[in-house]
Amino acid sequence: MTESTQQAQDQPNEEGSRLRLKSGSGLIETAARSGLQLVLACGGRGQCGKCRVRFEDRAPAAGERDRHFFSTAQLDAGWRLACQVPVEAEGRLFIPQSSLSGDAHQIVTVAYDRKECAPDPPVRKAFLKMSTPTLQDSDADLLRLEKAWHEACPEEKGKSLRASLPLLQQLGQRLRGASWEGTVTVRDDELLDFEEGDTSQAAYSLAFDLGTTTLVASLLDMQTGLELALSAEMNPLIAWGDDVISRITAASTDDSALQEMQETLLNSIATMSESLILEAGVSAHHVYELAFAGNTTMEHLFCGFNPSPLGQSPFISLFAGGHSHGSAAFGLPVHDRCCAYFFPVIGGFVGGDTVAALLASDFASLEGTRLLVDAGTNGEIVLGHGDRLWAASTAAGPAFEGARISQGMRAARGAVEGVVFHGKGLSLSVIGGGSPLGICGSGLIDLCGELLRCGLVDAGGRLRVPEEFDGHEDSFPLSALRKDDRGALSFVIYESATGSIALTQKDIRELQLGTAALRTGMTLLLREAGLTVEDLDLLIIAGAFGSYIRVEQGQRTGLIPETLPPEKIRIAGNAALDGARWASLSRAARSEAEALAARIRHIDLSTSDDFAETFALATLFPGAGLRL
Amino acid sequence: MTESTQQAQDQPNEEGSRLRLKSGSGLIETAARSGLQLVLACGGRGQCGKCRVRFEDRAPAAGERDRHFFSTAQLDAGWRLACQVPVEAEGRLFIPQSSLSGDAHQIVTVAYDRKECAPDPPVRKAFLKMSTPTLQDSDADLLRLEKAWHEACPEEKGKSLRASLPLLQQLGQRLRGASWEGTVTVRDDELLDFEEGDTSQAAYSLAFDLGTTTLVASLLDMQTGLELALSAEMNPLIAWGDDVISRITAASTDDSALQEMQETLLNSIATMSESLILEAGVSAHHVYELAFAGNTTMEHLFCGFNPSPLGQSPFISLFAGGHSHGSAAFGLPVHDRCCAYFFPVIGGFVGGDTVAALLASDFASLEGTRLLVDAGTNGEIVLGHGDRLWAASTAAGPAFEGARISQGMRAARGAVEGVVFHGKGLSLSVIGGGSPLGICGSGLIDLCGELLRCGLVDAGGRLRVPEEFDGHEDSFPLSALRKDDRGALSFVIYESATGSIALTQKDIRELQLGTAALRTGMTLLLREAGLTVEDLDLLIIAGAFGSYIRVEQGQRTGLIPETLPPEKIRIAGNAALDGARWASLSRAARSEAEALAARIRHIDLSTSDDFAETFALATLFPGAGLRL
Repeated sequence: MTESTQQAQDQPNEEGSRLRLKSGSGLIETAARSGLQLVLACGGRGQCGKCRVRFEDRAPAAGERDRHFFSTAQLDAGWRLACQVPVEAEGRLFIPQSSLSGDAHQIVTVAYDRKECAPDPPVRKAFLKMSTPTLQDSDADLLRLEKAWHEACPEEKGKSLRASLPLLQQLGQRLRGASWEGTVTVRDDELLDFEEGDTSQAAYSLAFDLGTTTLVASLLDMQTGLELALSAEMNPLIAWGDDVISRITAASTDDSALQEMQETLLNSIATMSESLILEAGVSAHHVYELAFAGNTTMEHLFCGFNPSPLGQSPFISLFAGGHSHGSAAFGLPVHDRCCAYFFPVIGGFVGGDTVAALLASDFASLEGTRLLVDAGTNGEIVLGHGDRLWAASTAAGPAFEGARISQGMRAARGAVEGVVFHGKGLSLSVIGGGSPLGICGSGLIDLCGELLRCGLVDAGGRLRVPEEFDGHEDSFPLSALRKDDRGALSFVIYESATGSIALTQKDIRELQLGTAALRTGMTLLLREAGLTVEDLDLLIIAGAFGSYIRVEQGQRTGLIPETLPPEKIRIAGNAALDGARWASLSRAARSEAEALAARIRHIDLSTSDDFAETFALATLFPGAGLRL
Repeated sequence: MTESTQQAQDQPNEEGSRLRLKSGSGLIETAARSGLQLVLACGGRGQCGKCRVRFEDRAPAAGERDRHFFSTAQLDAGWRLACQVPVEAEGRLFIPQSSLSGDAHQIVTVAYDRKECAPDPPVRKAFLKMSTPTLQDSDADLLRLEKAWHEACPEEKGKSLRASLPLLQQLGQRLRGASWEGTVTVRDDELLDFEEGDTSQAAYSLAFDLGTTTLVASLLDMQTGLELALSAEMNPLIAWGDDVISRITAASTDDSALQEMQETLLNSIATMSESLILEAGVSAHHVYELAFAGNTTMEHLFCGFNPSPLGQSPFISLFAGGHSHGSAAFGLPVHDRCCAYFFPVIGGFVGGDTVAALLASDFASLEGTRLLVDAGTNGEIVLGHGDRLWAASTAAGPAFEGARISQGMRAARGAVEGVVFHGKGLSLSVIGGGSPLGICGSGLIDLCGELLRCGLVDAGGRLRVPEEFDGHEDSFPLSALRKDDRGALSFVIYESATGSIALTQKDIRELQLGTAALRTGMTLLLREAGLTVEDLDLLIIAGAFGSYIRVEQGQRTGLIPETLPPEKIRIAGNAALDGARWASLSRAARSEAEALAARIRHIDLSTSDDFAETFALATLFPGAGLRL
């Protein structure tokens, strides 16, 4: 497991987040929509001084409460109390980590297996030295540059270079200003840029996983494929509902809502991009490619496509194939001619993230019978049997991403990502070390797995009462089992003066629903192809759990069929992001994604006669092992 | 010769022009820059009431003088006196013909030889009927449309359709609103539009000849190749100088001048386009392709490319190959996704207009030794000898377009385009009939040819004095020969109570310089290839003279070598516009233009040792035939 932390640096030792504020939208609400919860200990009355933010431009006039908490120098530097900022203020903000409550901004990475991911880079750069024009050597500027480019890259010969109008309007002066020496950037037959000096090594891409609950972004060096920075945020569209159906409904009922949702999302993506670029210390003008892998609804909302038809039968997507657009339309802080690629989708509920996960796992080329399960808020399942591919989706809920769990959180700093019981005690693995703040997806599976292993939870998912363990108190961390005044049981994994972290009976039910949904999907999809789990040669489990889940716990909780031998199981981490990384670096990867998506047959499991029965059976935890 | 007239219709029987006024630019100046001279009989003091204009939107507040000349209904309809319009006014204007002085807006066409010009249309349309989506037929919208498109046009199979973000954002609702029936417009693999109903027959293009002195525009039906409307205007950049060098200098000395020149030019082109669209009664949204053939400087200025390097040795163009841009960048009143194609250029002074003329005359495919002469303000000469092609340019001056001639005018209504002497009398051919207002290029050549034939002008270009014709007074229109108080001679071709039209000695010198420049170019270019006029199999004379010039008069004035048999001479009219027409209709024509331009070797004649001597000889008119 690879762990790394990612922070937007502001001043030495100061961590924090950046935000763009629009007039009329309100600082606190805008921050919340970006997943940033400001500390408002005094309730926003300007009395605690904890919600310090710094305007990087257009700071509003300082008020009386600002002057109370900040020096003149600080006020001049743009420091203000967030709660005192008027609603009409706008500009760019820095929010220090200390002004944020909880888990903001620290994340754990999933391992990024780079492989041979850049065989066909979409963008190439070269440093060129051209001859100065004379009467005897009077080629046009663009032709002169083209000839030098072809000399530097002989394999590009035969492609005439074209360029955008704005670049052409500057090109003559730039070439002369640089004395006919500089770096060109070319995509296919388009000259994207000419820069003075040698910047031929500076070419970057951004890859995004647009999940229902979480947004993950990765900044890559296009020439080496190395990851330079990684970031994750809560999806700000949670403000419109934590499942895609709620968001589709919101976007469908009000014309302005779609626009507002798109703007909110773009704002988050822009802020994430800026932070990554800042962290890696690269120039935004050297980011030439973006790749977005999102579920069908998220890709619609990002692009401003009305998702209404996705929300009602027959659940039709606007597009199927992948599509590319100039990123200028999205206002992202990258090169003017940067290209944004969106993954193809398979159906209304099997989206580009699944295609990306399939791409990353080389699913199409694998032999035998294989199943890929992407355990997100919407669970996607793809079955491959020889050359044939089927896909289906199932509503798993956000438990795997730590959401809708009483003390769940996304896989960020402070999240419990692993739990091990030993005798009466237990050990926690916390992202970033330090005190735990909540439980993320992998921690939830680990904890439930341990509870099942020790028999503290039964096959039906019931937390057992302490009385059931009479005489065996020393074997298990029974003291963690608590009953509140109303008789509700919970299992406490951490306690301190400031609070405790516990798993409730309701949380276990959430996980149960998630694993049951996925298992039902697997069973029905296999059945559709006339197969069973016994026929499987390979099962790939992907998902933004936080870290790699352990196979044994996956099997105990029922996420992974318990009869499947471990050697047939591959835990893939956030494979959707991996696929997006590939696509941002390689045109061949995009072509492969297109071909893959076009081959898959979408199956609607909700119409299956066996659904209810299969689901009911799947809600039973297979790994309950009370050894009393 | 084909004659047709083109007018912007406003109300029944009301002719006029349209103009876009920008705040701060001034109505009278803006009009003048678009070649529209307002009648200001009272000197712009609001007293004559002759400069009536009608604001189509944003009419400024009416003043006292406006109320004096217009009724309340007229004021409400937007009528104002142009001279009273404040400088900050803006909006769209209609200027009736009666408010314009002289020759504005009426033009003569050149014949358009349609041939087989649309073998490879850049844009295709089809009316599609799609099935309504169901759970069993759940293709994505774009895929459903693509399948229907492929069914309608089986030869397009294999091309996946892509679309712009703004179209995709509307597509789902448009398809559903139209109940899955409507017309698609496709360019290559891009879906440009989906419209309700069957508009599959409505596809138009605009072709432009961007000359130094004249702008000509043609509106074509893309499917039949028929011309629907044609228009010509003075090039408004004349305000920055009547030759390209003056304009290059103007654009080079002041950063804002280039922008201002581009805006002025775009304004004229937009107004011309609007008028053509209005006249033809088509929808601006159905204009999908534009083609621009201009000299190198005009193409630079149109695109906002700094032309400075064209104005100083080694005279380097920014681009050589043709280039295409979305026309949205130029703000023209056409389809959002309309494409503007600019012809390739051969050198700093042999531009896209020459390439277009070569394309129209199928120059590359001709056999033997052939010469094409494009007689514009800048004269271009291209020599073909077997497979080899050479091009050169020579500064001919604007006489062929009727400019820099004392009573010259461009080929518009009222221009004398032909002159024949018979005994003591003479006949005039006037464009559009009616009273003559001035002389255009073809009229100038005809008149000089007649004067040479009758011996009224000698080989050196001197107008003879009446005394030289003693005893032969009845044979020639001698009475037209006048001498003013200072002894300066002129030849009057028309007299009326309001004024007369005459040719001056200086005018003859202008023509002499023009023909000498072209003949020098022909001679030197042939010499460069080791050839002479005797070797020529074909001479093609192109130019926007106004109408087709007569070969005999071309030979008398020296424009055409006098020893060349008439069967070897082809008068091609405005071949540059013809080439632009082709390119607006056919991708194959564009490819041909690119291949052609790349094959031509540019020769700089100004460095030739023989230049001065050859030029001096060429100033002698060959056709002087005094038969006394």
